[in-house]
Amino acid sequence: MLIKAKQTIPSDEELEARLIIARDRLFVQQQLIKDKKLPVMVVIDGFGTAGKGSVIGRVIKIIDPRFFGTVTNKRPSEEETRRPFLYRYFVNIPEQGKFKFYDGSWMQDVTRAKLRDDISPEKYRQRIDSVKRFERTLSDNGYLVMKFFLDISKKEQKERLDKLKSDKNTKWRVGEYDLYENEHFDKCSAVYEQYIYDTDMPHAPWYIIDAKNKKWSELQVLEILVSSIDTALKNSGTNARILQNVFPLRKAIKLSEVELKGKTIVDSEYREKLNALQKRLTELHNIIYRKKIPVIICYEGWDAAGKGGNIKRITTALDARGFEVQPIASPLPPEKARHFLWRFWTRLPKDGHITIFDRTWYGRVMVERIEGFCSENDWQRAYNEINEFEKELDDWGAVVIKFWVQIDKETQLARFTERQNTPEKQWKITDEDWRNREKWDAYESAIDEMLAKTNTEFAPWVILESNDKKYARVKALETIVKRIEDRLK
Amino acid sequence: MLIKAKQTIPSDEELEARLIIARDRLFVQQQLIKDKKLPVMVVIDGFGTAGKGSVIGRVIKIIDPRFFGTVTNKRPSEEETRRPFLYRYFVNIPEQGKFKFYDGSWMQDVTRAKLRDDISPEKYRQRIDSVKRFERTLSDNGYLVMKFFLDISKKEQKERLDKLKSDKNTKWRVGEYDLYENEHFDKCSAVYEQYIYDTDMPHAPWYIIDAKNKKWSELQVLEILVSSIDTALKNSGTNARILQNVFPLRKAIKLSEVELKGKTIVDSEYREKLNALQKRLTELHNIIYRKKIPVIICYEGWDAAGKGGNIKRITTALDARGFEVQPIASPLPPEKARHFLWRFWTRLPKDGHITIFDRTWYGRVMVERIEGFCSENDWQRAYNEINEFEKELDDWGAVVIKFWVQIDKETQLARFTERQNTPEKQWKITDEDWRNREKWDAYESAIDEMLAKTNTEFAPWVILESNDKKYARVKALETIVKRIEDRLK
Repeated sequence: MLIKAKQTIPSDEELEARLIIARDRLFVQQQLIKDKKLPVMVVIDGFGTAGKGSVIGRVIKIIDPRFFGTVTNKRPSEEETRRPFLYRYFVNIPEQGKFKFYDGSWMQDVTRAKLRDDISPEKYRQRIDSVKRFERTLSDNGYLVMKFFLDISKKEQKERLDKLKSDKNTKWRVGEYDLYENEHFDKCSAVYEQYIYDTDMPHAPWYIIDAKNKKWSELQVLEILVSSIDTALKNSGTNARILQNVFPLRKAIKLSEVELKGKTIVDSEYREKLNALQKRLTELHNIIYRKKIPVIICYEGWDAAGKGGNIKRITTALDARGFEVQPIASPLPPEKARHFLWRFWTRLPKDGHITIFDRTWYGRVMVERIEGFCSENDWQRAYNEINEFEKELDDWGAVVIKFWVQIDKETQLARFTERQNTPEKQWKITDEDWRNREKWDAYESAIDEMLAKTNTEFAPWVILESNDKKYARVKALETIVKRIEDRLK
Repeated sequence: MLIKAKQTIPSDEELEARLIIARDRLFVQQQLIKDKKLPVMVVIDGFGTAGKGSVIGRVIKIIDPRFFGTVTNKRPSEEETRRPFLYRYFVNIPEQGKFKFYDGSWMQDVTRAKLRDDISPEKYRQRIDSVKRFERTLSDNGYLVMKFFLDISKKEQKERLDKLKSDKNTKWRVGEYDLYENEHFDKCSAVYEQYIYDTDMPHAPWYIIDAKNKKWSELQVLEILVSSIDTALKNSGTNARILQNVFPLRKAIKLSEVELKGKTIVDSEYREKLNALQKRLTELHNIIYRKKIPVIICYEGWDAAGKGGNIKRITTALDARGFEVQPIASPLPPEKARHFLWRFWTRLPKDGHITIFDRTWYGRVMVERIEGFCSENDWQRAYNEINEFEKELDDWGAVVIKFWVQIDKETQLARFTERQNTPEKQWKITDEDWRNREKWDAYESAIDEMLAKTNTEFAPWVILESNDKKYARVKALETIVKRIEDRLK
């Protein structure tokens, strides 16, 4: 059993009375949760046979089935193991106004690896940092994150296991890990306790539940759930504070300082370099595929800066089975109803694959900021959330390349005008492009702030001077080739 | 050296240029800090000879001397060791609008104890929890908490120590611990790293500073300082979120459910019990004095409930050298300019002593709440802050006894009227008492919430039914005697 504050089990009568009150309150709260668009994550971890499934089963009976989902922690699929550690959890976060119950969680991934001696102390700390950032960023974005650990004694577990084993109808429920856990109970307890201690946070604390008795378990979980929902409803609408940056930043250039003049290339040199670089990229694509290195290439830039053509020169060199281009438009309703990075997590490549994002998560601090699609607090917090996201990708082993495709205002005007006057290019220019152009200065200062605040050592920005599109294409290819080669060293 | 993100040292030219910018910005910021009443705590820890004092010396040159103070970490005095672990740090927090620089911090208390093998793993975790709560509660209350660790290599440290030792003017600066640290460099590094990892928090992160070069150290500290102050100024006015309760609570009684009828005592029995209990308390006071157990007795209750007379019956039994009564009135300006618990930290007893608080920190969730002396967010957060404070006292080994002295409304009216009509008692009744009486219902519901939310296992409330003051006095004495006896078991 884990260290925990002693609590007296109430009498059967008191227990029943308090259960009725707690159930009633949760029943009422579900409507408030829907109204206030509160997303609620309830994690139930614990010793085998402590009754995780049973507690979840009892709690969800109170809730309208349209308002909750449950996730059972299984071994990750092959698809999932080829994504960042938290991928399968991030893609499973609930949408606003709904509950999600987790029968076992990311805790298991970490603690079991530790028990198998399959994780170095450094990797362990990295995982803990990931978990802390994951839970904190959700909490900062208005999620209520609750974590319960159902605690029983070794003896109690042994009795429950023996009972399950002795009945042919329940025998199958005793897994290999359950037996291991009981046999190495103290070792397991120590590892769990360390994890709980390492990931206990003000905004996502752990609750150790005395799980000796089913009704008592349910009552403890329900009462804590109900009081936490009360608190979360009170906090609803409160801005999360902006965090101090903790990632060393490289000095970033301001757009007004970018020298565009002279950044041109003559046609013959272009052809030659393009060919050579594309050939090299094709080779590298093969190598990263075999070495299972993921590559993420991000394109941001002014309208008509030449992103599309630039991307095309990259993809031409790639094997279609190993890459994807993700064009990013406005978020859809199910995307808006979740953490703003959710739609990027779901679009991450498998390892060994390349994903090119045509516009990215940086929309949060550009268009969403300028058009007021999110609150000031939202975009102010986003710099750090983005840095943390990219740190996650870097920890995973990904090569993260971020391009800002730069042109000057006159070049944009010339290209807009040309598009307007060329029938087969007219689809490329819309009224919105002209409206955005009017906001050039607001965008420029937002972009300068973005470059300064997200120019991390692990995911620095590269400016592609694109008044001459060919120059920009060659520079993009050179950058990608160099970054992948560096990674392979 | 500690694990840290690699950073490239800029060229001398860039370094100088950036130093000028950072110094200028800090110079400007100090006025904003004053205007926005931001309190700033800058902790500089690090290896011996890494230049902690020198960095502080360089930074404070920029700041108006009226706006900062420095605290040098020394061995705790005898007075300080007899107080809770964080006492000497809590009493030293800055007031609003001012900087405080810490040349070494609470980190040392923990890491040195660990290096001396003078702390159990459980105690270590308890200390870490204390530190995390300390820094978080300050941050929640608007403090900017910055923590730097100046990092150098073993070799570099050796060279610096040798240089200091070789000069008779600087020889004295080499302490015993510096030599120990250099000799056991890897062991020390591991302990520091663990502590830094354990106490790295979103709202009070650690910054590892490459301290090889003085100017580069200064630049890193200054740039992080300046950018964090920017963030803190942006956050100024943002409410901290209310935290979920993490302490198991006992079910609390509502005031309307308190049975006052029949809670009386006949005079002869009163005399007899009073005498016996006071005699026993005198003995116990002696024992706790020798065993160095601190006792904290809190009195809250309605006006005219009989607190004063009750307290008198306690103090009569106590040796004047071993107790203090702290009457709590409205906070003074220097108290208002700090965390609301500061004025209670400064009033804590030494171990072996008893402090009786005549009104307490619960004013935050009663009078300050009802009269609007603090914001709603402030008092909503206070329940948890108070529970954490009392947890600190409990961890320290204190017996914490909390009395609510209860009377009904009619009894209060009778006592008010009697006071009004008795010339020698008239000083005891003011217009404010009558005004408060009009708010009885508002107070009652605030008190019910307070009792429910702060009735922890380690510091539960005791209701003293005081329609019959004598009954209440006997119950108070019985409670104190029993709690101390339990503690001595």
